Amino acid sequence: MQVVECVPNFSEGRRGWVVDRLAETAAAVEDVTVLDVQTDPDHNRCVLTFVGPPRAVAGAALACAGVAASLIDMQVHRGSHPRIGATDVVPFVPVSGTSLDECAGLARELGREIAARLGIPVYLYGAAASRPERVSLPDIRKGQYEGLKDLISQPEWTPDFGPPRLHPTAGATAVGARPPMVAFNIYLQGADLRLARSIARRVRERGGLLPRVQAIGLEVEGGETQVSMNLLDTATTSIWKAFSTVKAMAEEAGAVVVRSEVVGLLTAGAVTGSLAEVLTCPALAPEQLLEARLIDLAAGAPR
Amino acid sequence: MQVVECVPNFSEGRRGWVVDRLAETAAAVEDVTVLDVQTDPDHNRCVLTFVGPPRAVAGAALACAGVAASLIDMQVHRGSHPRIGATDVVPFVPVSGTSLDECAGLARELGREIAARLGIPVYLYGAAASRPERVSLPDIRKGQYEGLKDLISQPEWTPDFGPPRLHPTAGATAVGARPPMVAFNIYLQGADLRLARSIARRVRERGGLLPRVQAIGLEVEGGETQVSMNLLDTATTSIWKAFSTVKAMAEEAGAVVVRSEVVGLLTAGAVTGSLAEVLTCPALAPEQLLEARLIDLAAGAPR
Repeated sequence: MQVVECVPNFSEGRRGWVVDRLAETAAAVEDVTVLDVQTDPDHNRCVLTFVGPPRAVAGAALACAGVAASLIDMQVHRGSHPRIGATDVVPFVPVSGTSLDECAGLARELGREIAARLGIPVYLYGAAASRPERVSLPDIRKGQYEGLKDLISQPEWTPDFGPPRLHPTAGATAVGARPPMVAFNIYLQGADLRLARSIARRVRERGGLLPRVQAIGLEVEGGETQVSMNLLDTATTSIWKAFSTVKAMAEEAGAVVVRSEVVGLLTAGAVTGSLAEVLTCPALAPEQLLEARLIDLAAGAPR
Repeated sequence: MQVVECVPNFSEGRRGWVVDRLAETAAAVEDVTVLDVQTDPDHNRCVLTFVGPPRAVAGAALACAGVAASLIDMQVHRGSHPRIGATDVVPFVPVSGTSLDECAGLARELGREIAARLGIPVYLYGAAASRPERVSLPDIRKGQYEGLKDLISQPEWTPDFGPPRLHPTAGATAVGARPPMVAFNIYLQGADLRLARSIARRVRERGGLLPRVQAIGLEVEGGETQVSMNLLDTATTSIWKAFSTVKAMAEEAGAVVVRSEVVGLLTAGAVTGSLAEVLTCPALAPEQLLEARLIDLAAGAPR
């Protein structure tokens, strides 16, 4: 039994009914189960998590992209998180009975369909990327919707599928495949946007400190700021390592961490890895999680 | 589909072949899957974790109790962990499609069988206890095998099933039902047995500090000591809370925590609860664990 996880991000985090329509659209596809819906009004963005067999999951993603194109207008979209389109990014993640390569194939198929059926330019990223400079999502997203309007006509920005111009309301979409990652936000008090951005710049892989980490600094409601991170491989940089590094930098500058949040789902390995560090408990393994063992069992894994 | 977890503890942690025989015995029962085998030579004790439908799991526990009675001799058993018998304790834990009450019923049936077929006196504990003073396992175990020899003939120590005398080699057995718990050991360096015991006494529920925690101090190999704990309800006292409390007490007395270990399996809730505290991440929930969600899905839980 093949199970793929899909975690599309849409540029809508304020109009609840649009988020509901997106979730209902995915849930209506046979064999697809929506596991999580997370909405962030500051980011003006929502993240769906759904699972199912590869074709069904790709079908649900295509249906959602159609709904997003008709209900979200990027020309008037404002939000603190970088984005290039109504359906901003669609990652496929192997869960069981499938590989990263197969998920990359699925991403290419979906990218072709989104371009062909909806007229939206598509960039392939992650394990599905067609060029090295498109592997990393921040690179694709750095001009954002507004900047990509002009960039997209330049040869190095030609999309992998679809026309070399933005869809007027839906913008562009990144479609890709990746291993499980953790989207992790840390909220700061007493830190202005400048400090949040400076911390993000220093901790992220390109700043040199934390390998396999992407980070940006954002302004959020209530006078707080946020360091918003993607932990691309928690075996390399754990949630705890990311948290304690940001916390130490914030405190050094006189700010405090008020809370953190995990957006969407995370895997057994991501939680046991952090707990093993915190508890000086080197032997703690994801296989010690009852639920992980029961899943292996249900999937017919050898004892 | 009903799934019960059974986590029997046997008084053998040195002769590997005996532990293997116990695990093979459980695994040979149809529909039963052995998820974990943990062996501790200091405790001279092993812990099996297996799952399956209620009847199958109880059948496996009975078969193991028979093997333990024939291969383990309590008259010569030495180990640092309190125990009353070859099959020391058999807890049933509801996992899915079943309740604590049903597991208590299963415990009573197994207790009756162990007494009838093997001639071993049985005490019911936890949710299966017949009297308030037998709810807590440490109360049943406090005289240990050696002390219980005399105690068992006193009226207040009459077993729930079986003869009012110890089985010559197999001793007695506690059988019960309980919610998921975490068996958690913390290793100390620079702490003598006296200090380990003093920390255990102060942190445990009866010492007043940590509710729903049982703790004992033990001597282990290599000049280290151990605070060995059962965290009976990690929603009340988390793994992190137990760890940081013991660590602070040890350090105050000039000792250090060198490592910790989780014996057997633990649930999604136990890990996310601790991580939520450590990361100041109040919203982190077991439902955010992909594996937990997939299990709900496989069990046909409503979306």
